[in-house]
Amino acid sequence: MAVNYKAPVKDIIFGYQVINSYDVLSKISQFSDFSEDIVIPTMEECGKFAEEVLAPINAVGDEKGATIKDSVVTMPEGFVDAYKKFAEAGWSSISLPSEIGGGGMPVVLSGGTLEILSSANLAFGLAPGLSAGAISALNFHGSQEQKDKFLPKLVSGEWTGTMNLSEPQAGSDLGTITTKAEKSEDGSYRITGTKVWITFGEHDMTENIIHLVLAKTPGSPEGTKGISMFIVPKFIVNDDGSLGERNEVKCLSIEEKLGIHASPTCVMEYGGNEGAVGYLVGEENRGLTYMFTMMNEARVWVGGQGLSCAVPAFQGAAQYARDRVQGRPVGMSKEDAKNSTIIDHADVRRMLMTMKSYTDAMRYLMYDNQLMMDLEYFAEDEETKAFGEERCGILTPVTKAWVSDLGVELSSIAIQVYGGMGYVEETGVAQYLRDSRIAPIYEGTNGIQALDLMFRKLPLDGGQAMQRLLTEVNETVETMKNGDEELQNMASLLEVEVNNLSEVTLWLGGKMLEGELVDASSAATPYMKMFGQVIGGYYMAKAAILAKQKLEETKDEFYADKITLSKFYMEQLLPLASGYTSSIKAGKDTLYSIKSENF
Amino acid sequence: MAVNYKAPVKDIIFGYQVINSYDVLSKISQFSDFSEDIVIPTMEECGKFAEEVLAPINAVGDEKGATIKDSVVTMPEGFVDAYKKFAEAGWSSISLPSEIGGGGMPVVLSGGTLEILSSANLAFGLAPGLSAGAISALNFHGSQEQKDKFLPKLVSGEWTGTMNLSEPQAGSDLGTITTKAEKSEDGSYRITGTKVWITFGEHDMTENIIHLVLAKTPGSPEGTKGISMFIVPKFIVNDDGSLGERNEVKCLSIEEKLGIHASPTCVMEYGGNEGAVGYLVGEENRGLTYMFTMMNEARVWVGGQGLSCAVPAFQGAAQYARDRVQGRPVGMSKEDAKNSTIIDHADVRRMLMTMKSYTDAMRYLMYDNQLMMDLEYFAEDEETKAFGEERCGILTPVTKAWVSDLGVELSSIAIQVYGGMGYVEETGVAQYLRDSRIAPIYEGTNGIQALDLMFRKLPLDGGQAMQRLLTEVNETVETMKNGDEELQNMASLLEVEVNNLSEVTLWLGGKMLEGELVDASSAATPYMKMFGQVIGGYYMAKAAILAKQKLEETKDEFYADKITLSKFYMEQLLPLASGYTSSIKAGKDTLYSIKSENF
Repeated sequence: MAVNYKAPVKDIIFGYQVINSYDVLSKISQFSDFSEDIVIPTMEECGKFAEEVLAPINAVGDEKGATIKDSVVTMPEGFVDAYKKFAEAGWSSISLPSEIGGGGMPVVLSGGTLEILSSANLAFGLAPGLSAGAISALNFHGSQEQKDKFLPKLVSGEWTGTMNLSEPQAGSDLGTITTKAEKSEDGSYRITGTKVWITFGEHDMTENIIHLVLAKTPGSPEGTKGISMFIVPKFIVNDDGSLGERNEVKCLSIEEKLGIHASPTCVMEYGGNEGAVGYLVGEENRGLTYMFTMMNEARVWVGGQGLSCAVPAFQGAAQYARDRVQGRPVGMSKEDAKNSTIIDHADVRRMLMTMKSYTDAMRYLMYDNQLMMDLEYFAEDEETKAFGEERCGILTPVTKAWVSDLGVELSSIAIQVYGGMGYVEETGVAQYLRDSRIAPIYEGTNGIQALDLMFRKLPLDGGQAMQRLLTEVNETVETMKNGDEELQNMASLLEVEVNNLSEVTLWLGGKMLEGELVDASSAATPYMKMFGQVIGGYYMAKAAILAKQKLEETKDEFYADKITLSKFYMEQLLPLASGYTSSIKAGKDTLYSIKSENF
Repeated sequence: MAVNYKAPVKDIIFGYQVINSYDVLSKISQFSDFSEDIVIPTMEECGKFAEEVLAPINAVGDEKGATIKDSVVTMPEGFVDAYKKFAEAGWSSISLPSEIGGGGMPVVLSGGTLEILSSANLAFGLAPGLSAGAISALNFHGSQEQKDKFLPKLVSGEWTGTMNLSEPQAGSDLGTITTKAEKSEDGSYRITGTKVWITFGEHDMTENIIHLVLAKTPGSPEGTKGISMFIVPKFIVNDDGSLGERNEVKCLSIEEKLGIHASPTCVMEYGGNEGAVGYLVGEENRGLTYMFTMMNEARVWVGGQGLSCAVPAFQGAAQYARDRVQGRPVGMSKEDAKNSTIIDHADVRRMLMTMKSYTDAMRYLMYDNQLMMDLEYFAEDEETKAFGEERCGILTPVTKAWVSDLGVELSSIAIQVYGGMGYVEETGVAQYLRDSRIAPIYEGTNGIQALDLMFRKLPLDGGQAMQRLLTEVNETVETMKNGDEELQNMASLLEVEVNNLSEVTLWLGGKMLEGELVDASSAATPYMKMFGQVIGGYYMAKAAILAKQKLEETKDEFYADKITLSKFYMEQLLPLASGYTSSIKAGKDTLYSIKSENF
């Protein structure tokens, strides 16, 4: 009955082609041999692992969830074993540098593997996901001694890592944290304070957990400039690598959440007697800067969780629609209707097309975002590197917000396809709505992403960075205009919307130059929605152009379907973008007219 | 921590004014004295009851849910007692005819009371809601003997009633039901079969439950024309009104659902040995026709459940936004930000305005729908009655689909306002997302509502019924044009969208005349979305016009806020309507290009 997830390997492979990943990576010497010879077997293997090991425990993870007793967190049945297999297979370290024991693959390769693993079991994937963040932070900013001590077992997956940022009074605004770190005579620190929302802060899958904790040292500057980062291991690690004493850190409670039940969300207490032993990472007061190192990766990952929920939800809905006999579609004879299932109803088709078309667009955006990250991190020539940084900067909030919002919307549509059965938990599809609902919230709410796009990304390089992206979209429109009638029609639809986006972008740029910042902040979310919708159109245009070529070469109807999905996007989803224009230009006045107490 | 629901009595009272309910009802002799003297105390009393009795058990109902053991369903703590108080207070029978013991009030009065009661506890309200359906069916179609036997205790709430339509293979399409009814010598029938999705099919709140069951008699015509309706009491009712033997009906299991946990959704088994004793209602083979008698009321009620979830979700979000200190709003000094909460952030304001503005529009639509039902049922002159039927016919699928879809969307937005806290079940807001998600599914999926609007309502009276509604919208636009600048601006915005809707409606009418039915069915859902958005604008326009007057008279800023909410709707929500044009006109081809197995 549960959703039977199958990794969409062919779609993923096509995604790597749409964003032209092999050509782009050929500019980077260490990835110059990156090709389908790597991507195809990786995705097939990953799909096999996800389908066989992770998907089967997704439902039990949801139903039973992680549990806590006396500060000990127990994972649902099967998770400890699955984690062991996961670590052994090396899935979490595929894109980590080879010098620290990782696979040495580009970030973009993890686009496909993360998509697959999270689709099979989102809650499970959060443990290695957070570890990856901790690994990056240590690798970028830790001392050689710290790296030697902690990285090997984190990379191998023998230990997991966590990120401890939030406190009850400090969520989106970390400037107000109160966790303290006092230096002791041996050079280490004693950490005391309470951290909340700590994903996999405690669990029984590994023998040790390495916490990265933000705290303030005595006399540090106020606000975000006085935050330092510390390594706080659950068990002290001796110099020979063996585990020593239990550190003064424990899990006080775990949250009862709407979804991702198998991911324990912990309230963590540091200290008690003398404080938890912690080791300063890098320099004092630079903790938040270090955190930002991993921010883009983390945000893209979280955005991608929307894709990872939408894909299995779609698959389940499509299968149900193919199986479920019910009613007579408009225009079908009674006789034909006897062999018909609900997939023949126009409205069910519309729901499936909406899901499939959007998930393609979401995938291309996310992979391209990661590809740009590879350029930013690894390109040798400065120009390419700068371009990667610029483009990655623009795309990241869009991937985070647009893709995660769609994850919720599409998971909800999948329930609708199932009808009453979708509302029954046993069917499994409702879990995707519940699981996906966190992604628009954590790792910077989508409202914060919209502000990031507006205030940091739109003005990049005096607005020219954005202009360069819009120019690329226009070039794609021109390419389609030189194609056949079908492409030309798509070009017309995309042209209308990208022109409108360009106009709105200029208008907003003007507002900001005039100092009308509150008007701009009022426009941020509808601008983000328009932006995502149009950028999705850009990728669907590229997909259509490529699919036309591939169809001619191979006659494979897979590519004909990709053209149809792009056409559907252009004519039925993309036009929603213009609907936000009026909202964007409305300014702040209406939003602030009603007194707070009158709501 | 849980959401502290307060019945929005002032908004509700204003709603009755916006739809001009007192004038409209003055045309009906039995309601000619319907006035605020009735509405205000009724809503205040209802609010008090809902806040004091039903809201406090909403969270426990969700957390514990109804449970089953050996076919006995036990309600969560507090429900049996609350139900007793509810029945004693007479809330469920307020709009039932006085001749059967009801309050004799117009249907529209139940708009406000149902909104309030369901906002306080949606799951609870389903029991009396289903009873009301059973009562109407019996009152309209039962024999005098049946009415005398069953109605008094159903109306008083001593018993509850259920509706048994669906079977595993027969959901949206009831033509395929297989439950059998065979006549026995005493004139009663023996019912055998299994029914699914039976809301409150079994529970421990009342001593008896009266099931209305759809079944087929031997030799009845195929499909929907061969369905009859039967009364099947849980306990046989003796002629003296006392309870006799337990009938052969039992609950096999209850569903584990995403939401409405305190509403047991039962699989019911009829028969076992000799079949359950059932009594034919009206004539054989007319069961579905009888069901349709209550369809409009039921659909409006279910649509309204979206409103009932959105309102407390909004209230919780607004309170949280007023309380939560976090971050510095764009454009605010550090000093000011110290006394600021997240309600000062433009994006949070946008979310609150979106919720509050939409819930107003949803409320006006639902109440007006019910007011038209009063005309249909009770108007003495044929013309008024016909108008009521026509308008009610058009509005009903829109209330069901547009309002219930928004219920899910707005409940989800409320979670976003809470941030991480919204994802924690303890906060209570996530329940509204889970509870609301059923409304787009049951009582005819929203896809079916869209087909109803397209194929039954758009062509009513050769399209003139729709034209009459659009003309009213245009007249409202004209009225606004004669108002002040603010109203004139709103008029311009509404005019654009109603013109577009009119054009699209004519275009679709043409398509249907050409026999392009599959194209029309493909357009049904986006047409519904556009239609709802524009009709919402119509009501918000009426609200703005009225609020202008009231503000002048009273200087009460409540009315200034209503003007702001209408303005927000016109400039920021209404313009989304046009975004569906391209989708509506796209036709069937793209939807059906991909083979079923390729999804």
